[in-house]
Amino acid sequence: MSPEQPLENLRLVLVGTSHPGNIGSAARAMKAMGLRQMALVAPECDPGHRDAMALAAGADDLIAKAERADDLNPVLADCTLVFGTTARQRGVRMPGLSPREAASRLLAAARAGQRVAVLFGRESSGLNNDELQRCHAAIHIATDPAFSSLNLAAAVQVVAYELRMAELDGAPPATAPDASDPEEGGPEPPATHAELEGLFGHLDRALHAIDFHKGRSPDTVMRRLRRLFFRAAPSEREIRILHGILADAERMARLADAAGGQDRG
Amino acid sequence: MSPEQPLENLRLVLVGTSHPGNIGSAARAMKAMGLRQMALVAPECDPGHRDAMALAAGADDLIAKAERADDLNPVLADCTLVFGTTARQRGVRMPGLSPREAASRLLAAARAGQRVAVLFGRESSGLNNDELQRCHAAIHIATDPAFSSLNLAAAVQVVAYELRMAELDGAPPATAPDASDPEEGGPEPPATHAELEGLFGHLDRALHAIDFHKGRSPDTVMRRLRRLFFRAAPSEREIRILHGILADAERMARLADAAGGQDRG
Repeated sequence: MSPEQPLENLRLVLVGTSHPGNIGSAARAMKAMGLRQMALVAPECDPGHRDAMALAAGADDLIAKAERADDLNPVLADCTLVFGTTARQRGVRMPGLSPREAASRLLAAARAGQRVAVLFGRESSGLNNDELQRCHAAIHIATDPAFSSLNLAAAVQVVAYELRMAELDGAPPATAPDASDPEEGGPEPPATHAELEGLFGHLDRALHAIDFHKGRSPDTVMRRLRRLFFRAAPSEREIRILHGILADAERMARLADAAGGQDRG
Repeated sequence: MSPEQPLENLRLVLVGTSHPGNIGSAARAMKAMGLRQMALVAPECDPGHRDAMALAAGADDLIAKAERADDLNPVLADCTLVFGTTARQRGVRMPGLSPREAASRLLAAARAGQRVAVLFGRESSGLNNDELQRCHAAIHIATDPAFSSLNLAAAVQVVAYELRMAELDGAPPATAPDASDPEEGGPEPPATHAELEGLFGHLDRALHAIDFHKGRSPDTVMRRLRRLFFRAAPSEREIRILHGILADAERMARLADAAGGQDRG
């Protein structure tokens, strides 16, 4: 919201955390790096536990006012850019970024007034595939392959540190290609996470309606299409156009169906 | 000694540590960043305490083989470059370096076969003046002035991370967002201009077929969609998927048309 305080637009989201001490350490790491917006999604422990308070060491205000939710939807709804941290690059079916690259992109978006988020998964198993599918890219901390076990709070510290460095870096980084519309004046803000998820839901329904899958599993195609549209970072207006196209395709499918559905499949 | 393994020449020195958990967390942070040489000077706790072992989480070998000493002399004796971490820049009467600058200088020296060290002070009071006087420069982590309380292990994590980044500098960076498909092997080349134009032609025909325009000029929408897909830079395979979707939408439109086209327009 306020370009003067870009870190206010940036939330770090802990998903399914098991150890209250990690929530406390993460809060302390965040606060020392100037980050204040924490979100706790489906924690597997009590964030008010004394271990959390002890390790927060004065950053317990972040925990007290942390957004809490049972799933990612409300936390990501207004976000235009979401990155998820992963322990390994291999097998992650999405673009990979270093913490430094990620911080640069997050800060650029936050400075433009957009809401952005970074997700941190469970101590034991990280983020699951569904959660990673909600991300525009994965942040990969280049640990030693011989010992890649990074503590959750340590990962938060590294990302928070790079965000702080990016914030202190005076010159705003070069802007990525965006959805600006020279025909219509100023640049258009990219769609929010909720708007993009709305598009993906509609796309999924429309592909079924026009019988695109023909018995094959829709998973691979949907994963590819998600990646394609995440890359494009459509504006809210572009999302509306795409909804319109999908609605017309569905209308044709209904008419075809009403006519007896011959030649389908 | 071995320029191929510069991190072997680099030791992190914990001075007067009070909490065994911090020794364990520091060991884990170091090992995950490829650092193996830990030294413990006059610890105020038992480095073999179970809290240290628990938080080391598999990095307890670093603690077991850590150099131990009552003062800095034996630990720094063979070092040519020593930096000390400080919580605050003010009042430190020596050159100040960011962790990034420090890591760059430490790695350069370590690559040249020199022994180098970074000192980390007490949880409560940091390094004292005598200890800082042993250092060539101070490393200052730019915490938020409103909350500069960085946990000891978090400071170790930040410095170890920058050392790892400096070591990897020169290695190929993490992959940029592209159309690569790790599911299927190597990266996919982006589609050619001709393939993109082929998609736009098909898109134009499909929008007419499903009666998207409803009498309005197609120019503005097509211009927007072109821009969207140019930004996404789809791969040849993604273009094929989009052709498939458009073909199925056209098929539905034909079926609807054959059924009499009621409700169209």
